[in-house]
Amino acid sequence: MAVVVLGTAAVQAFIPVAALMGIAFAALQWYVVAKVAVPHPHAGPGPGAATSDQKVSGRGSDAPHDEDDDEEEDGVGARRRGSVEARCAEIQRAISVGATSFLLTEYRYLAFFTAAFAAVIFLFLGSAHHFSTHPTPCSYAPERECRPPLAGAAFSALAFLLGALTSVLSGYLGMRVATFANARTALEARRGVGRAFAVAFRSGAAMGFLLASSALLVLYAAVNLFGLYYGDDWAGLYESITGYGLGGSSVALFGRVGGGIYTKAADVGADLVGKVERNIPEDDPRNPAVIADNVGDNVGDIAGMGSDLFGSYAESSCAALFVASISSFGEDHNFTAMMYPLLVSAVGLLVCMATTLVATDVAEVRGPDDVGPALKHQILISTVLMTAAIAAVTFLALPPRFTLFDLGNDDKHVKNWHLFVCVSAGLWAGLVIGYVTEYFTSNAYAPVRAVARSCRTGAATNVIFGLAVGYKSVIVPVLAIAAATYAAFRLAAMYGVALAALGMLSTVATGLAIDAYGPISDNAGGIAEMAGMPRRVRERTDALDAAGNTTAAIGKGFAIGSAALVSLALFGAYVSRAGVAAVDALSPRVFVGLLVGAMLPYWFSAMTMRSVGSAALRMVEEVRRQFEDIPGLAEGRAEPDYATCVRISTDASLRKMMAPGALVMLSPLVAGTLFGAEALAGLLAGALVSGVQVAISASNSGGAWDNAKKYIEAGMSEEARSLGPKGSEAHKAAVIGDTIGDPLKDTSGPSLNILIKLMAVESLVFAPFFAAHGGIIFDRL
Amino acid sequence: MAVVVLGTAAVQAFIPVAALMGIAFAALQWYVVAKVAVPHPHAGPGPGAATSDQKVSGRGSDAPHDEDDDEEEDGVGARRRGSVEARCAEIQRAISVGATSFLLTEYRYLAFFTAAFAAVIFLFLGSAHHFSTHPTPCSYAPERECRPPLAGAAFSALAFLLGALTSVLSGYLGMRVATFANARTALEARRGVGRAFAVAFRSGAAMGFLLASSALLVLYAAVNLFGLYYGDDWAGLYESITGYGLGGSSVALFGRVGGGIYTKAADVGADLVGKVERNIPEDDPRNPAVIADNVGDNVGDIAGMGSDLFGSYAESSCAALFVASISSFGEDHNFTAMMYPLLVSAVGLLVCMATTLVATDVAEVRGPDDVGPALKHQILISTVLMTAAIAAVTFLALPPRFTLFDLGNDDKHVKNWHLFVCVSAGLWAGLVIGYVTEYFTSNAYAPVRAVARSCRTGAATNVIFGLAVGYKSVIVPVLAIAAATYAAFRLAAMYGVALAALGMLSTVATGLAIDAYGPISDNAGGIAEMAGMPRRVRERTDALDAAGNTTAAIGKGFAIGSAALVSLALFGAYVSRAGVAAVDALSPRVFVGLLVGAMLPYWFSAMTMRSVGSAALRMVEEVRRQFEDIPGLAEGRAEPDYATCVRISTDASLRKMMAPGALVMLSPLVAGTLFGAEALAGLLAGALVSGVQVAISASNSGGAWDNAKKYIEAGMSEEARSLGPKGSEAHKAAVIGDTIGDPLKDTSGPSLNILIKLMAVESLVFAPFFAAHGGIIFDRL
Repeated sequence: MAVVVLGTAAVQAFIPVAALMGIAFAALQWYVVAKVAVPHPHAGPGPGAATSDQKVSGRGSDAPHDEDDDEEEDGVGARRRGSVEARCAEIQRAISVGATSFLLTEYRYLAFFTAAFAAVIFLFLGSAHHFSTHPTPCSYAPERECRPPLAGAAFSALAFLLGALTSVLSGYLGMRVATFANARTALEARRGVGRAFAVAFRSGAAMGFLLASSALLVLYAAVNLFGLYYGDDWAGLYESITGYGLGGSSVALFGRVGGGIYTKAADVGADLVGKVERNIPEDDPRNPAVIADNVGDNVGDIAGMGSDLFGSYAESSCAALFVASISSFGEDHNFTAMMYPLLVSAVGLLVCMATTLVATDVAEVRGPDDVGPALKHQILISTVLMTAAIAAVTFLALPPRFTLFDLGNDDKHVKNWHLFVCVSAGLWAGLVIGYVTEYFTSNAYAPVRAVARSCRTGAATNVIFGLAVGYKSVIVPVLAIAAATYAAFRLAAMYGVALAALGMLSTVATGLAIDAYGPISDNAGGIAEMAGMPRRVRERTDALDAAGNTTAAIGKGFAIGSAALVSLALFGAYVSRAGVAAVDALSPRVFVGLLVGAMLPYWFSAMTMRSVGSAALRMVEEVRRQFEDIPGLAEGRAEPDYATCVRISTDASLRKMMAPGALVMLSPLVAGTLFGAEALAGLLAGALVSGVQVAISASNSGGAWDNAKKYIEAGMSEEARSLGPKGSEAHKAAVIGDTIGDPLKDTSGPSLNILIKLMAVESLVFAPFFAAHGGIIFDRL
Repeated sequence: MAVVVLGTAAVQAFIPVAALMGIAFAALQWYVVAKVAVPHPHAGPGPGAATSDQKVSGRGSDAPHDEDDDEEEDGVGARRRGSVEARCAEIQRAISVGATSFLLTEYRYLAFFTAAFAAVIFLFLGSAHHFSTHPTPCSYAPERECRPPLAGAAFSALAFLLGALTSVLSGYLGMRVATFANARTALEARRGVGRAFAVAFRSGAAMGFLLASSALLVLYAAVNLFGLYYGDDWAGLYESITGYGLGGSSVALFGRVGGGIYTKAADVGADLVGKVERNIPEDDPRNPAVIADNVGDNVGDIAGMGSDLFGSYAESSCAALFVASISSFGEDHNFTAMMYPLLVSAVGLLVCMATTLVATDVAEVRGPDDVGPALKHQILISTVLMTAAIAAVTFLALPPRFTLFDLGNDDKHVKNWHLFVCVSAGLWAGLVIGYVTEYFTSNAYAPVRAVARSCRTGAATNVIFGLAVGYKSVIVPVLAIAAATYAAFRLAAMYGVALAALGMLSTVATGLAIDAYGPISDNAGGIAEMAGMPRRVRERTDALDAAGNTTAAIGKGFAIGSAALVSLALFGAYVSRAGVAAVDALSPRVFVGLLVGAMLPYWFSAMTMRSVGSAALRMVEEVRRQFEDIPGLAEGRAEPDYATCVRISTDASLRKMMAPGALVMLSPLVAGTLFGAEALAGLLAGALVSGVQVAISASNSGGAWDNAKKYIEAGMSEEARSLGPKGSEAHKAAVIGDTIGDPLKDTSGPSLNILIKLMAVESLVFAPFFAAHGGIIFDRL
């Protein structure tokens, strides 16, 4: 074993300390946000009643546009400040209660699923070696005895439960932070864009650091606790740790799909009646679906996304650890080198803290034009700093040269700087994906402007151009992923690919911060509108929100890019663990697997799109019914029945998340059991290469439509003003495009990256079973 | 060598005789159609002027719907019969002149491209062996001398030119038949649906048999003529014959893309102003883009599709022949067995003749409800008959057992009934694809009706549901292709896959007939509208057209399914010829190829969608300009300037077909030359598995939207009537969906199947070059 600068004790101290620092940093951000006072909401009628008299004076039912907001001048606003704050608190409470109650219901369903699936894991893995409790020869030294296979089955199930629990916590805490922050952002917007930005951004950071740190801490604790039993049997230890990734992603799948259906059923339903038929502004409190819409942002975009990125992080760490455990690190029991993936993540937390300070304390946001660049600089700064940090960790923690196991080929002799290149390749590929995503979805650039221009000839050309933008936006990200994959693969085989994924996720705290910032700003805008804040405030939150649309798209780009790399690493680990010699497209089983795998993202999207569509139809009917049946609702004299709309979204999402969830969870089990490990390998590769394209194009088409609409609404240029104002034919066409993009960008697209990585990690966990008993149909044909 | 019932002389006689019988049958159908008299159009003003006074009485500019057509009662129609016929002749001439002039211009461009690319083939292939004119050892007997490599280069280029020429002829003749038939169909529609159906169907059959027969005849002639030079060197002979497939598909690519852009620019442009803004019926002669729209149907859906299916047929034959030539058939010089692929096609022609007679002479179409079933039965009847015919050919032509070369594996010992299963698997998979396509795109079934219902809440839900239907429609066709592939692959390796493709195409004459029937009926409806025929006639042509939409979708399903099988066979042949040992997804080159290959269909679709969109925008501006600038146009008192619209479509399609064409033609050359044969293999597999999904979903979403609109227009049920009539909000939403579907189903979708097979056949042709000189970049990294 070569000399390594960092000793075991230093590593054992550094990782948890960095994680705890991250949690403290999150608490600090939360503390600063909490200083914005929101009065305690008193018990009473739901939001909407408190200030109903105020709304009557402010709005007429026949007002064609929301120009009439102008009537609420600052003077009026100032006089009513007390009531506006109370109203904000009221709305925040309604959103928070709705989101909490939905998540708790969802998690109750997930508890059953998780328990059942843990049993499945135990039974399948146990049966692979006939529930043997006899010790097996160690992989690193066949003359020694290691832990029995049944222990592996039990610890895999345990790791699965742990991953699921951490994922649930990630989603839940993220939602709490976001719903804590949205009214505060709206209130601070009265004092300027910069102050509102600071609140939204700090809240995002609180969430980002909380998640990234606890993910690292739990994984680190699990490795050490499992290690107490496994001792020197690192291969066995990290084999069972992969269950952690599976647990994380399973919960993420249901979170993304359920949350995605929830938010988009409400959003589409609210828009179709409110904006298109009734011509009332977005987030108008007269719209019965408006609370459901805002709840949706928190359960879909916040909780779902938090679980999603936690899952990616957990899986890429597990993939790297598993591959490393069967390399020379594992066989030589080099603890520091073995912990390299966790060290990279720990250093990433420190880098992200420094990056956050730039936005909050160094380069202040003063006006609306600073918002976009401030967020964009976050990515660049964290990437540059992280590159240096990776170099430091690499040379401190790794021996100068070592040996990696390369599937089916000769062992790979690797130098430490090779791994630096692998991690950095992923990191910089992420930057490229982020910037390209920004180019195709921000209304500062040509593609979105061309989409907006095409609204001149109606919704059809808008949709055609938007689809084309989404398709086109796939090119560079795929080339970036391909380049990073090739470099990492050549230098360090599958370990390199896992490290590239980890590199892309090493700045996940910053990524989550700017990603969570989006829905928080979106909600803040909704609260500003509902609380009847002056138009100027709404314009400020709109400026925050437009940048948020782009960062949300960037976040999705990261999630998809990292999912592709993670899946490939997991795929490689699966192939090695299942003992598949080669995944040759010229073998009929593999080819058929490729073809069918490439189809799965379409099947999945068909289900989710249809679910959102039919739930939205029900929502539309309910909203129309309320406008017709509740006298005075359209004029703002009566309060809508928000609760029924919340219930429609809740029911639809819980019922409709089952089928797509089952498709993803069962496909690998069915393919592996019936058609064998080789066909499953093809299936994974097909789903991966096809799913990446569908996911990126869906997310970016949706982002482009959304910002094309915002471009017209904001009148950002001579051309935009000629297309507008709100309510013009071109704007109506833009709203149609935006509505179509909603399920694409917030339900189908982001769920697809979970599909590809979840199928891969599930295959990895069940690989011993498929190797032993898989292929009962193809073996006969 | 085992005993074979069919001798060489019998085979040599049977194939050309069957092909000539097919041509005679086509001539017979044409003769029957020609008996419908259309007066010779006299020189004079273009269409639109002749009956302008009539239109003034019939239509007011402010009429909201086309209800006013009712005023033209049959009595009025009868009195004007003379002028209606003259007008039909006039319009037919305008369409024919427009289509001919476009195709001739397009072919002039293609002549340059074809000549240049033939030179590229000669240079690349020649350089692979340094332009050697020395004989090489024969593959089947190394002690004998075979033809020099330079001859292979020259003959490949020659075969390429021959394929391109046949493809051009296929497209051109198809267009001539269709433009000959459309006015005749419209005129016969006055005498009943059955008579109109007979004309449209016979014309389709004339085109189908003409194409299928001449494709077989030219290939047969080429094999025999090249054989004069090659003699016993069958491997060399069939290696150069593959150029025939490349030539056919290259022309088809530009035909599909150019024709697709042409037709959809005109169609979308005409609809956006005519139907959406001006509220005038489809195909109204006041619309300046109406002639361009009808010309487009003939150059896109007819000429493009003819070239496309010819290309598939040529490629699958070439793939089968090439693989057979390096099997025991080739090495034993068993001529009858070697000709098995052509025998299957020849028998297919006879089966299709019998099938056609069922529709024209046995089961007559009496009313609108008979049209759909009649077309559907064609597919079923031809499939059942063909299965028996394949069995006969198989047992007559093949030895009971023989040996096939299996890439990278041991030789495969095959029995003759195995090949029967391979061909039949493809044939029946085609039937499944046809029926599933019908289910998802016909307005007789639930999916399209759900799409129509979703129009109640506007265009956005319509698009969301339509996309979901397209995604969902991928599932069963992909499983059918996968099942056929697996069966064929296991039984007879890549030869089996090529035969499965050929099986799917064995009833291509019938497939083309029912496919060409669609645009002919569509044009007939246009002519009926433009000539001012009574509303009853238009209803009859609408009934024909609705069935035609579904058969067009079925035709696309066949084209895509066969393209998938053909591409796989070509891919296998390429891998063997390029000497790639395995296409292992765990090799970095292959994986990167897979990922980037899966992206190409998106890049390609982005280009074609955008081209249609921007050409349509220009068309909209021109149509709007004419309505504003030409006094009396909206009232039908003045004639629009059709020629300018034709020119816009022509210019756009010729200019915009270059980039997507170049993407497809250059990708394999760039990938093979720079990144090597292995990366190219990955690229092909990725493009194949991803392109199939994009193509099927795009075609079927488009078909579903089109028929959802027709469902509402026709008021086919209680529900449909509650959504309509024309001009209602739901109908407007349906029109938007239909417009979005236009470029998806007629430009991007059908072009993608050419993308996947063209890249495969091009790789096969250039394989010797890539094997010798490929990979100049990856070899250094």
